[in-house]
Amino acid sequence: MAEAWNANTVMSSPPVLLGVPFDAASSYRRGAALAPPRIREALRSPAGNNWAERIVEVVCDDGFEDLGDLDLPGADAARTQIEAAIAALAGRPFIALGGDHSITYPIVRGLGTDRSSLTILHVDAHPDLYDEFGGDRFSHACPFARIMEAGLARRLIQVGIRTMTGHQRDQARRFGVEQIDMRAWAAGARPHGMTGPVYVSIDLDGIDPAFAPGVSHREPGGLSVRDVLGLLDSLDASLVGADIVEFNPAVDVSDLTALVAAKLVKELLAVWRTAS
Amino acid sequence: MAEAWNANTVMSSPPVLLGVPFDAASSYRRGAALAPPRIREALRSPAGNNWAERIVEVVCDDGFEDLGDLDLPGADAARTQIEAAIAALAGRPFIALGGDHSITYPIVRGLGTDRSSLTILHVDAHPDLYDEFGGDRFSHACPFARIMEAGLARRLIQVGIRTMTGHQRDQARRFGVEQIDMRAWAAGARPHGMTGPVYVSIDLDGIDPAFAPGVSHREPGGLSVRDVLGLLDSLDASLVGADIVEFNPAVDVSDLTALVAAKLVKELLAVWRTAS
Amino acid sequence: MAEAWNANTVMSSPPVLLGVPFDAASSYRRGAALAPPRIREALRSPAGNNWAERIVEVVCDDGFEDLGDLDLPGADAARTQIEAAIAALAGRPFIALGGDHSITYPIVRGLGTDRSSLTILHVDAHPDLYDEFGGDRFSHACPFARIMEAGLARRLIQVGIRTMTGHQRDQARRFGVEQIDMRAWAAGARPHGMTGPVYVSIDLDGIDPAFAPGVSHREPGGLSVRDVLGLLDSLDASLVGADIVEFNPAVDVSDLTALVAAKLVKELLAVWRTAS
Amino acid sequence: MAEAWNANTVMSSPPVLLGVPFDAASSYRRGAALAPPRIREALRSPAGNNWAERIVEVVCDDGFEDLGDLDLPGADAARTQIEAAIAALAGRPFIALGGDHSITYPIVRGLGTDRSSLTILHVDAHPDLYDEFGGDRFSHACPFARIMEAGLARRLIQVGIRTMTGHQRDQARRFGVEQIDMRAWAAGARPHGMTGPVYVSIDLDGIDPAFAPGVSHREPGGLSVRDVLGLLDSLDASLVGADIVEFNPAVDVSDLTALVAAKLVKELLAVWRTAS
Amino acid sequence: MAEAWNANTVMSSPPVLLGVPFDAASSYRRGAALAPPRIREALRSPAGNNWAERIVEVVCDDGFEDLGDLDLPGADAARTQIEAAIAALAGRPFIALGGDHSITYPIVRGLGTDRSSLTILHVDAHPDLYDEFGGDRFSHACPFARIMEAGLARRLIQVGIRTMTGHQRDQARRFGVEQIDMRAWAAGARPHGMTGPVYVSIDLDGIDPAFAPGVSHREPGGLSVRDVLGLLDSLDASLVGADIVEFNPAVDVSDLTALVAAKLVKELLAVWRTAS
Amino acid sequence: MAEAWNANTVMSSPPVLLGVPFDAASSYRRGAALAPPRIREALRSPAGNNWAERIVEVVCDDGFEDLGDLDLPGADAARTQIEAAIAALAGRPFIALGGDHSITYPIVRGLGTDRSSLTILHVDAHPDLYDEFGGDRFSHACPFARIMEAGLARRLIQVGIRTMTGHQRDQARRFGVEQIDMRAWAAGARPHGMTGPVYVSIDLDGIDPAFAPGVSHREPGGLSVRDVLGLLDSLDASLVGADIVEFNPAVDVSDLTALVAAKLVKELLAVWRTAS
Repeated sequence: MAEAWNANTVMSSPPVLLGVPFDAASSYRRGAALAPPRIREALRSPAGNNWAERIVEVVCDDGFEDLGDLDLPGADAARTQIEAAIAALAGRPFIALGGDHSITYPIVRGLGTDRSSLTILHVDAHPDLYDEFGGDRFSHACPFARIMEAGLARRLIQVGIRTMTGHQRDQARRFGVEQIDMRAWAAGARPHGMTGPVYVSIDLDGIDPAFAPGVSHREPGGLSVRDVLGLLDSLDASLVGADIVEFNPAVDVSDLTALVAAKLVKELLAVWRTAS
Repeated sequence: MAEAWNANTVMSSPPVLLGVPFDAASSYRRGAALAPPRIREALRSPAGNNWAERIVEVVCDDGFEDLGDLDLPGADAARTQIEAAIAALAGRPFIALGGDHSITYPIVRGLGTDRSSLTILHVDAHPDLYDEFGGDRFSHACPFARIMEAGLARRLIQVGIRTMTGHQRDQARRFGVEQIDMRAWAAGARPHGMTGPVYVSIDLDGIDPAFAPGVSHREPGGLSVRDVLGLLDSLDASLVGADIVEFNPAVDVSDLTALVAAKLVKELLAVWRTAS
Repeated sequence: MAEAWNANTVMSSPPVLLGVPFDAASSYRRGAALAPPRIREALRSPAGNNWAERIVEVVCDDGFEDLGDLDLPGADAARTQIEAAIAALAGRPFIALGGDHSITYPIVRGLGTDRSSLTILHVDAHPDLYDEFGGDRFSHACPFARIMEAGLARRLIQVGIRTMTGHQRDQARRFGVEQIDMRAWAAGARPHGMTGPVYVSIDLDGIDPAFAPGVSHREPGGLSVRDVLGLLDSLDASLVGADIVEFNPAVDVSDLTALVAAKLVKELLAVWRTAS
Repeated sequence: MAEAWNANTVMSSPPVLLGVPFDAASSYRRGAALAPPRIREALRSPAGNNWAERIVEVVCDDGFEDLGDLDLPGADAARTQIEAAIAALAGRPFIALGGDHSITYPIVRGLGTDRSSLTILHVDAHPDLYDEFGGDRFSHACPFARIMEAGLARRLIQVGIRTMTGHQRDQARRFGVEQIDMRAWAAGARPHGMTGPVYVSIDLDGIDPAFAPGVSHREPGGLSVRDVLGLLDSLDASLVGADIVEFNPAVDVSDLTALVAAKLVKELLAVWRTAS
Repeated sequence: MAEAWNANTVMSSPPVLLGVPFDAASSYRRGAALAPPRIREALRSPAGNNWAERIVEVVCDDGFEDLGDLDLPGADAARTQIEAAIAALAGRPFIALGGDHSITYPIVRGLGTDRSSLTILHVDAHPDLYDEFGGDRFSHACPFARIMEAGLARRLIQVGIRTMTGHQRDQARRFGVEQIDMRAWAAGARPHGMTGPVYVSIDLDGIDPAFAPGVSHREPGGLSVRDVLGLLDSLDASLVGADIVEFNPAVDVSDLTALVAAKLVKELLAVWRTAS
Repeated sequence: MAEAWNANTVMSSPPVLLGVPFDAASSYRRGAALAPPRIREALRSPAGNNWAERIVEVVCDDGFEDLGDLDLPGADAARTQIEAAIAALAGRPFIALGGDHSITYPIVRGLGTDRSSLTILHVDAHPDLYDEFGGDRFSHACPFARIMEAGLARRLIQVGIRTMTGHQRDQARRFGVEQIDMRAWAAGARPHGMTGPVYVSIDLDGIDPAFAPGVSHREPGGLSVRDVLGLLDSLDASLVGADIVEFNPAVDVSDLTALVAAKLVKELLAVWRTAS
């Protein structure tokens, strides 16, 4: 977990796909641990093809290496294992398929990037900045409080927010979080100046439930899939890793959300593919 | 039903939530009378929280007073009762949960605002301006013809319209209705100059069926939920009341529409909350 | 298949509705042959009305003539029959309800327009430009390769594309296809200069699966229904025919897609109605 | 409500179909008022035919007379109207389509049969014998308490019961109710000796939710549709009327329950048809 | 189509699986042509295993030979091709996956069994004995009229019937059809004495819609899956072929019917497997 | 895990409800870990009541004690914890809500009954007797091989079996398993002579998918819910514990299976209630 991020390192091998089937920190409805196999299935569905919108083939032998799913305990020890798994990648770019949002804290701990340089682009309906939730400081409602407290990132940019509370507004101010809530997004605000190593964390409930109903905390009024794809379009070789979390197959409608998750995997892979 | 609207009165007590489970004036498929309990359930779902996007808590003790549902007959006498129930609020702000759109006429009659000043902001796929429909002048296809005929509003602004007929176009001209149909909306037109007392009537079929499938008269090509939230963002203390109508749980998909209705309730409550 | 397009001819009779229930060229999941009766049902649903957004009545006696469905073999002979059926219309405007996208090639062959003048406006998630697919040169993945090879159109404008492959990019360059892919569309690009005879081919998977889930090849990140309606708004009397293809009722959600298809039929009919 | 039942009277005209869209006495989830139009639709679906299993045509001009739906208030006055509507039939056989089970009390009051002779065959998961429920003595959980208290029937035979409580067991004993609960039914017990005028009341939740999911109070372990059809097979000209209640379209699965209700209507009609 | 059935021939090679994706003779809702790939998919689902209830492995290399689907025209010529395909099997046992029930007539023509000896065991809600239906003598409502007229079978035993009409009752008498309708089945009647070559034709709507909702003509009150499996248990080496028809994936619920069809395939295969 | 079962001990306190949310040993599709909260929700649904069919109240303060869910790791250590949790009950009767079927092995280990006396009544479509499955000897396909190998039961009675393989038949013989497969069940066979301590293990896929679709390994042709309730009717005070496993909410249809599971909980509780 030591060395700083290095653009050369990042490009030396195909990106990694890693399942993190953990949902024991979910505050309401579990199910996100079922997501990784469903996303893989959608990723390889004969209904789609293997190319990303940047017109590069990504679902292919050298497109990524699938490491399968972590075998995790349901409780706190899982975090240690997740952090270790990411650290073991030693700088290889990766996409982690959650699992609930609590996995982002150990993932970012495992990143090994220079703490003074990391930018996190966070897509979500919720800021996930609670100091604790239901008595659990590692709840899926808290990861970004933990990350910012530990000084693991220089910038945290949140997009899609539409469930802010007074407490979380205070937390956001305390940590200097940059927020583009849905009202600002609809008015045209966009993230800017994302340089240096960038980590992307996509909670699928940032997207409107019409497009991605398979999430435990549906919140109407969200981003379109195209909005999120537009965000990914702005990424480049500085991308060090990503997670796609909170897909809950148990409440999906006609597998629509599995396909959205798979689409995001493809377009994230294409970021590295077009950079190499 | 006498006194003119008075901004001070409006703010003196928490807004009211009132169910109006009436769908006997529906021309096609009934079911809207089932909506109020489903919206309340969504409003208090542990999957969400109690805060609105203006970052005020609204689902809380002093956020609103829930008066429950009216006990209505299925036939014409219901209108008299609805009007009386609204009049009895004596100027307290309220949100009425329909029920079909026929309830808006007795509600507006019960408002007690100065007829020369009221502005109605009406979100809908349909103009609901028929002189009569299927032989019924109080059909859910007719409320705004009745309202305008009776001179109950100074301005009627319709947003989301995409099923205009020749007859209704004539009616719109006759009553001086201001329309921003979906073609105009897509081209950037927006309502403006909404001053004085404002009443908001949201037929959920104004929203595209992808976001709100639970309506009896689905019409593709509608507003997004965010579009409607943007409209609500422009409201202020002049809001005297609102209705959310035509949610039909019997044709909803995975409870998506119940949640949309609950979101709109929260954001409407926030209008008053941020004004007080 | 001989005479050139002539604007006067086109307007001499009401447009034609013709079902083409053929899906034997589908590469993955069949079902599109089931679409025509479902679209007709949605077109006449008592939940809607008979007027288009241009405020003309279109679902009425002189609005169109419904020729019913072609009785087609499942195999290659179907193409000959489709071409002959279109040629027999002798220039009457028409809307063909597919069936899979393979029907567009014989339809365009049957159009009888001057090859040097035809513009095709093609809405789709996929370019359908494969030289062959799964060994079949007439697959639903290939119609526009066949059309362009045969010189049947002067311009091919594709909108909504988001699954381009390397091979198809080469084909697009070879045939001079004009593409507005979803990234360009989201950035504001729109088709322009569509003069002379225009043919419109709408693959419903061009639309985002949130709005039109009933397609065999769902691809997230697509057009909204309103986006497509906006495209149709730009059409005029030069429209010679149209197809709506790839609706697969077997994977629809709550009949949402049937209604989208019916809406498109109405708005296409309105193009001719407002021109006459 | 005066004259005694007379077998000759009963046969003098085709049976009546009457919708009773009332669900205001439902203790949990409303929706049963939506049932009548859905059952009619299923009854005339082109997917079925017009013949009953006794091989008589029943969905035809002289098979029954459809009187449409009662226009009922939502509250207590509805009971008076229901009773009057049945009394007005003056002995004509009828099938009432509910609505919730509270309608059976006013229907039986309106029957006008000799109180000393009526047998009621009651299919249900629940005995509906509560003295009051949620403070309402006319709740859908109470109709048979009211009927037996008023001495409106000589015998009450209940089939399919599987949710008996201590209070209701006491009520059943007090009223001399004959019960064939599901455990007895599975062991082979069947009703016997049903002579004189017979009234049939079918609560669709008597049937297992696998066959009839569209009910508000699903209770696993119930009758099969064939079990209920077998019961109807034992009926003859002494049948004076019937109701089919508690179908809630808002929770049906793929319209399965609508079709079950329509099947029961057909087989009930056939009882009279084969008797005449 | 000449030689008589010969038990030795039948056993000389593994049985054949053959898709017959034809639904152009359906009177109401098409979709049965989509069934074969769905049944194959269910047959090989990792959720099941490869063994039949007779404890023989059947989904394995020597369990059957899958000939794929016939490439059929949509119209009358299809019948000729179906008959030829079956004749070409020259006595090899087979299971044909429909398609609608009209395919059974050409299949039985192609059987090549001695007309004086064939017994057909026919599971269905409908007798399919219409002389013509909607003007079509080859409709899916007519195959057994054609078969019996042509003297292609010595005995026709129908099980599960529950939609008999007067006309079909006359036809049944004329052809000497043995019927065990659902009322008789529920009373304990079963087929007996099935000797000599036996052909089994299973229309999935013979099964109750609770078990097999994916059929175009749902009829409540049918057989359980176990009832049909019990029928298959009585079969032996005299089985010469079978069809499974009228599965319509477009109206299935959660793929339940696909799995029922696959189960029947397995148990039919086991008949031959345990005989060899 | 030491002391022998003692009927007096068993009755000294209300039975226990314990969630065991473990599905890491599932061979195909995970999701069973989501079951416990869904079953609890169904158990307390206002759509039902608190009484069991033996007419005893069971969902009440002294009906059972809910210990909540075990906090389990996803991997092998879970088994140790499950065994310990059951051992800690020290003979109190309990119902364990799985989770997949792999939990039954550690549960039975934790029972602490005299190995020479225990009878296990096992309802399932599958015998779960594999020596190993996919390389895992503790797979959900193997628990009864482990139990019988360890001599933890005197008798194992399996009901509902319909997917036997050759290997498992050999295992069944080796362990002296008594099987009532579905063919025998349909012919009238029933378990008998269940004396001494009895443990019941209900895999919901033993029930037909029409009644309980929410299982990962649906197998048509199974028991009805009533069949299983009949089995429970034969139980008495010798019941020492039970599990209900393999409910997978992610593939349920309209929550039907949750309700079936809750019904089974109630009827199991009633066994103890009527014994005390």
